[in-house]
Amino acid sequence: MRIIVEVMPKEGILDPQGKAVQQALHQLGYGEVREVRVGRRIELEVDAGDPAEAVRSAEQMADTLLANENIERYQVHAVEETV
Amino acid sequence: MRIIVEVMPKEGILDPQGKAVQQALHQLGYGEVREVRVGRRIELEVDAGDPAEAVRSAEQMADTLLANENIERYQVHAVEETV
Repeated sequence: MRIIVEVMPKEGILDPQGKAVQQALHQLGYGEVREVRVGRRIELEVDAGDPAEAVRSAEQMADTLLANENIERYQVHAVEETV
Repeated sequence: MRIIVEVMPKEGILDPQGKAVQQALHQLGYGEVREVRVGRRIELEVDAGDPAEAVRSAEQMADTLLANENIERYQVHAVEETV
C-alpha cells in the first residue's frame, strides 16, 4: 500500500528555500509568482491491510521522525496512483 | 491561485535520503515500511485567471528550474485547499 506524507513549513515560518526559488523564478520572467513554499513529499510503501490503520501508523511516523512539529505541518493519505 | 508541483526521484534512481528514512523507521520499529522515496512538494501562489494556463506555466517552471529531468519526474496541478 502506498502512503503519502506531505510536509510543509508552517504559515508564518520563514522558508528561505521557497524565497530563493521565488527570486529565481522572477529572474526567469515569471513575475506572476507571488509566493513559493517548498516542502517534502514522502512516499511510503508499506505492508498493511487496512488503509485507515496504515494512515494512522504513518501519522505516528510523521510525529516521531518525518516532520518537525515546531516548524512544519503534515498531511497523510493513502493513494492508488503514483506521481 | 495555488499551483502544486510535486517532484519525485525517478524510478531506478538511487534515493539516499529515502533509504536513510527507511532505515530510521525500521530502527523505530516500523518494519512494515518496504520502501521510502523522498521528493519535494512546491506550492506556488500565482496571479493567474485560468487554471489550465497556470498549470502550463508551472510546467515550464518545472522544466526550467524546479525539477532535474535527468533524475526527477514531476506532476503539476491547481488546488483550492492547502496541506
